[in-house]
Amino acid sequence: MSGKFIVIEGLEGAGKSTAIASIVSHLQAKGIRAETVREPGGTPLAEALRELVKQEWQENVSSMTELLLMYASRVQLVDNVIKPALQKNRWVIGDRHDLSSQAYQGGGRQLGAETLKSLKQLTLGDFEPDLTLYLDIDAQQGLQRARGRGELDRFEQEDLAFFERTRLRYRQLAATNPRVVTIDAGQAMQQVHQDILRAIEENLFT
Amino acid sequence: MSGKFIVIEGLEGAGKSTAIASIVSHLQAKGIRAETVREPGGTPLAEALRELVKQEWQENVSSMTELLLMYASRVQLVDNVIKPALQKNRWVIGDRHDLSSQAYQGGGRQLGAETLKSLKQLTLGDFEPDLTLYLDIDAQQGLQRARGRGELDRFEQEDLAFFERTRLRYRQLAATNPRVVTIDAGQAMQQVHQDILRAIEENLFT
Ligand SMILES: Nc1ncnc2c1ncn2[C@@H]1O[C@H](COP(=O)(O)OP(=O)(O)OP(=O)(O)O)[C@@H](O)[C@H]1O
Ligand SMILES: Nc1ncnc2c1ncn2[C@@H]1O[C@H](COP(=O)(O)OP(=O)(O)OP(=O)(O)O)[C@@H](O)[C@H]1O
Ligand SMILES: [Mg+2]
Ligand SMILES: [Mg+2]
Repeated sequence: MSGKFIVIEGLEGAGKSTAIASIVSHLQAKGIRAETVREPGGTPLAEALRELVKQEWQENVSSMTELLLMYASRVQLVDNVIKPALQKNRWVIGDRHDLSSQAYQGGGRQLGAETLKSLKQLTLGDFEPDLTLYLDIDAQQGLQRARGRGELDRFEQEDLAFFERTRLRYRQLAATNPRVVTIDAGQAMQQVHQDILRAIEENLFT
Repeated sequence: MSGKFIVIEGLEGAGKSTAIASIVSHLQAKGIRAETVREPGGTPLAEALRELVKQEWQENVSSMTELLLMYASRVQLVDNVIKPALQKNRWVIGDRHDLSSQAYQGGGRQLGAETLKSLKQLTLGDFEPDLTLYLDIDAQQGLQRARGRGELDRFEQEDLAFFERTRLRYRQLAATNPRVVTIDAGQAMQQVHQDILRAIEENLFT
């Protein structure tokens, strides 16, 4: 069976890391060993970019600069890790991918959907995940879950309106892309996991 | 009098740094204090990107990743340094700018002129230097001038064919853009400087 690329998306605290752990063990039980990757990051250069993009600077970071760094990291990961794995028929599970840029830089930073679409086409062409699970969470609720974890990075310091714009864009994109399944991540953890595993079964195994 | 943005372009060892010093003192003699900037780099984040893009990695650096990092650095410099200076009627002299990406990533790395054009439009819009001086040098001759300076970075290690493709693209772009003046940088230093100062006088002061 050929490898698949599954992506988990959502706001901070939506439950992405938790979801990935449960997907990995679900696949393992089926005899599939999946590789996990995260964005931004996932290669030595891409991890260095993750640091730069998350840290605070004494200067303003242009939204366009931020967007270009996200794509630099993504292209590096796709070319050096994701595509080679898929070519060897391995499964890959991504903690964030292109939809994050569409939502955060396009929606949150308001760079606009057309700019995002053009940059995606220019840098990734037609490369797409086989399935994206968007964990939809109320922005406030997600931040409350996530903010227990020490120092806030440059994104986590944004105000609620930023995350609400990001969520709105996520929901719009998820609603119009047939390869994106929306999961209600405000539910109890067990129900969330059940919905996730059902989506994987329905979309990749039937 | 309003500020101008002058860019010096050319292969390694073409004489860019030398030229900038002489332009700065020429302008100073006219009572104009010009700010100098370099690319990639020129802001704290952009200088960090300069390091990442020049250093060697244990992994292959995708040409597209390299291109995106160059533009990330450029946008950051344009937004935080160049545009604010021009708005205050200051003069800015750039050691490399957009033409470097067109030539190195477009020509040298063979990403293609169309991709480069689209990315420029997407990230910089219609922002353009008032005058670009392209110092045209034989690739071998430039490398010989430049390579006396210790450890070679990721670009300086490229083979001659890379720099010949880059030079060819530089020449094509210079020939078709009326705001780019080609200077024969293979001449004796004094003649080069004379040509540079004449180009500045003719294009910006008459
Ligand atoms: N459905 C849920 N109900 C309640 N708490 C949850 C639920 N899912 C996850 N959590 C808890 O919320 C916190 C954040 O979850 P997790 O780290 O998986 O989110 P994340 O999307 O990976 O966040 P980040 O974007 O910051 O990496 C964790 O403490 C996790 O145990
Ligand atoms: N016209 C010339 N004839 C001979 N030598 C020159 C000439 N112009 C510059 N040089 C010498 O060539 C060397 C490289 O010049 P310079 O550092 O100005 O080039 P550069 O384009 O800034 O290089 P780099 O791209 O590596 O920064 C220096 O030692 C400089 O003195
Ligand atoms: Mg996480
Ligand atoms: Mg120099």
